[in-house]
Amino acid sequence: MEKEIEKYFDRLWPICRSITGNGLRESFAILQEIIPLNLTEVPSGTKVFDWEIPEEWNITDAYIICPDGKKICDFKVNNLHVVNYSVPVNKEITYDELLPHLHYMLQLPDAIPYIASYYKPVWGFCISFNEFTALSKTGTYKVVIDSSLKKGNLTYGDLLLKGETDEEILFSTYLCHPSMANNELSGPLVAAFLYSKIAALKHRKYSYRFIIAPETIGIIAYLSRYGEHLLKNLKAGYVLTCCGDDAPFVYKRSKKSNSLADRVAEHVLKYSGNKYELMNFSVGGSDERQYCSPGFNLPVGSMTRSMYQRYKEYHTSLDNKSFISFAAMKQTTEVYFEFVKALELNDVFKNKIQFCEPQLGKRGLYPSSADPMANRENTHNLMHFLTYADGKSDLIDIAEKVNKPLFRFEEIVDKVMAAGLIEKGAAL
Amino acid sequence: MEKEIEKYFDRLWPICRSITGNGLRESFAILQEIIPLNLTEVPSGTKVFDWEIPEEWNITDAYIICPDGKKICDFKVNNLHVVNYSVPVNKEITYDELLPHLHYMLQLPDAIPYIASYYKPVWGFCISFNEFTALSKTGTYKVVIDSSLKKGNLTYGDLLLKGETDEEILFSTYLCHPSMANNELSGPLVAAFLYSKIAALKHRKYSYRFIIAPETIGIIAYLSRYGEHLLKNLKAGYVLTCCGDDAPFVYKRSKKSNSLADRVAEHVLKYSGNKYELMNFSVGGSDERQYCSPGFNLPVGSMTRSMYQRYKEYHTSLDNKSFISFAAMKQTTEVYFEFVKALELNDVFKNKIQFCEPQLGKRGLYPSSADPMANRENTHNLMHFLTYADGKSDLIDIAEKVNKPLFRFEEIVDKVMAAGLIEKGAAL
Amino acid sequence: MEKEIEKYFDRLWPICRSITGNGLRESFAILQEIIPLNLTEVPSGTKVFDWEIPEEWNITDAYIICPDGKKICDFKVNNLHVVNYSVPVNKEITYDELLPHLHYMLQLPDAIPYIASYYKPVWGFCISFNEFTALSKTGTYKVVIDSSLKKGNLTYGDLLLKGETDEEILFSTYLCHPSMANNELSGPLVAAFLYSKIAALKHRKYSYRFIIAPETIGIIAYLSRYGEHLLKNLKAGYVLTCCGDDAPFVYKRSKKSNSLADRVAEHVLKYSGNKYELMNFSVGGSDERQYCSPGFNLPVGSMTRSMYQRYKEYHTSLDNKSFISFAAMKQTTEVYFEFVKALELNDVFKNKIQFCEPQLGKRGLYPSSADPMANRENTHNLMHFLTYADGKSDLIDIAEKVNKPLFRFEEIVDKVMAAGLIEKGAAL
Repeated sequence: MEKEIEKYFDRLWPICRSITGNGLRESFAILQEIIPLNLTEVPSGTKVFDWEIPEEWNITDAYIICPDGKKICDFKVNNLHVVNYSVPVNKEITYDELLPHLHYMLQLPDAIPYIASYYKPVWGFCISFNEFTALSKTGTYKVVIDSSLKKGNLTYGDLLLKGETDEEILFSTYLCHPSMANNELSGPLVAAFLYSKIAALKHRKYSYRFIIAPETIGIIAYLSRYGEHLLKNLKAGYVLTCCGDDAPFVYKRSKKSNSLADRVAEHVLKYSGNKYELMNFSVGGSDERQYCSPGFNLPVGSMTRSMYQRYKEYHTSLDNKSFISFAAMKQTTEVYFEFVKALELNDVFKNKIQFCEPQLGKRGLYPSSADPMANRENTHNLMHFLTYADGKSDLIDIAEKVNKPLFRFEEIVDKVMAAGLIEKGAAL
Repeated sequence: MEKEIEKYFDRLWPICRSITGNGLRESFAILQEIIPLNLTEVPSGTKVFDWEIPEEWNITDAYIICPDGKKICDFKVNNLHVVNYSVPVNKEITYDELLPHLHYMLQLPDAIPYIASYYKPVWGFCISFNEFTALSKTGTYKVVIDSSLKKGNLTYGDLLLKGETDEEILFSTYLCHPSMANNELSGPLVAAFLYSKIAALKHRKYSYRFIIAPETIGIIAYLSRYGEHLLKNLKAGYVLTCCGDDAPFVYKRSKKSNSLADRVAEHVLKYSGNKYELMNFSVGGSDERQYCSPGFNLPVGSMTRSMYQRYKEYHTSLDNKSFISFAAMKQTTEVYFEFVKALELNDVFKNKIQFCEPQLGKRGLYPSSADPMANRENTHNLMHFLTYADGKSDLIDIAEKVNKPLFRFEEIVDKVMAAGLIEKGAAL
Repeated sequence: MEKEIEKYFDRLWPICRSITGNGLRESFAILQEIIPLNLTEVPSGTKVFDWEIPEEWNITDAYIICPDGKKICDFKVNNLHVVNYSVPVNKEITYDELLPHLHYMLQLPDAIPYIASYYKPVWGFCISFNEFTALSKTGTYKVVIDSSLKKGNLTYGDLLLKGETDEEILFSTYLCHPSMANNELSGPLVAAFLYSKIAALKHRKYSYRFIIAPETIGIIAYLSRYGEHLLKNLKAGYVLTCCGDDAPFVYKRSKKSNSLADRVAEHVLKYSGNKYELMNFSVGGSDERQYCSPGFNLPVGSMTRSMYQRYKEYHTSLDNKSFISFAAMKQTTEVYFEFVKALELNDVFKNKIQFCEPQLGKRGLYPSSADPMANRENTHNLMHFLTYADGKSDLIDIAEKVNKPLFRFEEIVDKVMAAGLIEKGAAL
């Protein structure tokens, strides 16, 4: 799986994506080889809640010719050199005129920063501080941005993997940044490979919704169409972002903070053996900001690794292939898949024999007198499960009462279902 | 009291009890000298929830004659030697044929283990590991178990000590093990002597129910008849078991975990000066498993000392008179009696003067100006009691707000009742 | 302000106040120069809940002439020398007859204790232990108390500073002790100067009620008239007492313990930079005992400094000008004024754009792409405020979620109100 992730990463990496445009479409086409997303085009000018879909941006080239004839800030070398959504420009200007259009970072002198301006028409170039300081202050600079901003569309992709019920689990990630690794490609890649694992499940209680859309505006467009549906059907969801390096996991709770999404994530992480950190919802974040806006307040959390704004390479050219690890992306996919398995296993159960204990012996579920201690832990787990299966507690509740992972009860659930001792209640 | 407990212990000790049979009846007859239990016989074959009353078991003798003529595993020497509920047997067999019918414990080589098999017809002997290893592997063994399994009855005893109200407090313990001390006789003996103390009370707000029955099946039979009644009337209850040695107290909460039973036990233990430990409900336990089954979920906890499965002598011949202490049994009885006194004293009170403080001075309840600090603590306790007597909080709530035992308020309650300042509300 | 407080302190200090009488009226007249209290006279004999207004007490002189002709316990030197509310006396007696009428303190041999007896008619003198031990045990003592107890009135003062709404904030303090500083004059002085600051506010959401009344009986009289009104209108209140020295602040919660009064006080103190301590309601206290009596249970807490009964000078002649500090009284006034500002600012807010985030950029509320990190904390505070403005949480809730004082959101609230993004909900 690692090799395959890398193969797709390498193909997606060079494409100049934005919140609209052909780079975005080209990226979706590649992802569709793994996850058969349905693509939707939302026309420029469409009102979506407090927002409006902007004009579509496309770009073919951009660069600066220095007074000495040297070409710098070459879009074709690194698409971060151009401010994303720059309006077209083609003119000769002085150093002083150029200056307000140049962006660099003092703190990381070798890095090209990532800048975008979707809603205010500007043009600009991003350059490393080291390169910037070497610029001649005299002479004429030629600046070229061969871009276009026209009525067009914003593209998003989604997919519903139907399960037994209409209750949904959501995995949402964004596609809109140019060449960056942890804070762009890790999300769609983990989502796509997670899709393969879930699609391969023989049985799914829940339906699984995948959304890959431009950050913020794309999800707002999505929610303007599907928000009410999600309010009705969504049981739990996660925003996949910054999940591609080998830093410990960070789980950021939904705003509700004890939703099913949070309970499952915290339960799985607690017993997963991986290092992790828990944090509450906050507004520095990704699309959980929209999902958890007051009117929706959906049960959507987010598990990351090196989180946005917490690593110095964030939003620079140094967030690249050497920053991430394909083994880590595989591991992130696996932990998210544990969430899925826990969600599928978790349920409210009701012991059909509510008054006194069931007689386990006559059902072959109790150790024989000759060896009363045999399998003691399993017998206790079984009795524990039955006595707490009151039609109100779910399996996570039951498992946490004895500080064990719910997976420890998987076999027991199968056995007592087979013995006809248990019925499933409504999920919490 | 210690001497008296010991006298009864010595008479009960040698009897071979089981969940049915004459040994059980003989034990009840002795206990009736202390506590006038009503005995009930439940016929074999009676359905009780998911269970059925088994045939009645009686035994007169059991032993093995070794190839060298030596008599071992003599039931008349120690009734633990025979697997409880063994079907009759009388035959000559080889060592290899005998082997699967022998039970011993590697970990305690001098102990005879206790084994029972009520619902699967087997025969067997229990032997110390040391004696087992000395057996000859050749020659013929004669095995004799002179037992009978026939349609008969299961016997249980109960008693209701009427109080002012129909609200009940329950003390439940079991009688069904052969010669063992902490995990058999401590429970009925403490229950019986606790009965004497409660019966001697001049005034009882609550009615007190005592149940002594074979563990599990006996209580299930009892609950099949009285379960609904208890659901209506039971305010608090305790399972008495393993309460005969001088280990610190262990209070195991009811499944509800903050029921009146739990609040009283924890409050009393907190201020009793004894060492104690609190633990949550768990399925390794005694008849609280039935009382707290999901359909009942009654407010029943259990206070033990060396708890089942937590001491190595448990379920062996070493759980005998030297393991226990009659002083400790007396102390256990006294602590349970503190629970009773706390239950009787605890109530919801309502200060009749709800608006502003009552003028205590004119009722002689306030220190004089000449010595304003006299009896300061009592005055503060009185004022504290009155201001929190809002008709919603009970005395435990009120006492715990100032981290004092409710007994500290006993005299105050009497004083303000006498002064007509207070009325009693419904118990929580 | 310190100088002004001191000026009033010096004028109020020598007056012999009690729960009724002309000393009380004289003190009110001085306070009215700062706070225009309405005075009310409640006739002796009036029933107020469980109490009755006593006869009015006035006193002109009191002293003892020793056998050697020396005048001691001279009321004109220190009004603490006479037991407050003493009945008149004028006679010659022996040392042994005098003895039961003398009060002194072993623990503070230089201090004159403060004693009062409002409801039991006694006469007595208070004397330092050192002076007491020097008294001659032979000869004749002349005791004179020139007091009167007659039908008259109890005087209290109140004032309602109207705000935009009828919802009220209460500041309550007492006036009834003779010459003592921390436990008498600090309360009315802080209340009066706090009044000036609140009266100077251009805009008040709440109406502010000030009550200055004799402790206990005065407030009980007040509540017998205004209790129902306060039950309907009171949002939060504070009892001002013992707030005149430079010890750390102590906030004593209302009996509800998480009322708006408590939440505001704890929130402000947490970020005020001052040392402070929190304690729960208890019956050793001042008029919060009446406000929090079960029938009222009003949201009234109390912020003190060296609290009643916690400093050795309490209720003695050593609770005098050198015990207190006018800088400290000014500081107490300021912290109470912070409570007011917090109460005024706190509200439940509702973001009008409940679904997805508002587009801040188009309203000039988002940093430009050229400098995305500019004002990051402010932008995050703004986004945090908007996402939690769900029409249910108040500003204290919202601020505490990010562990910041609510004052940090003051400017943001103004900005978003101006932008029309927010509406105010009902206060919690």
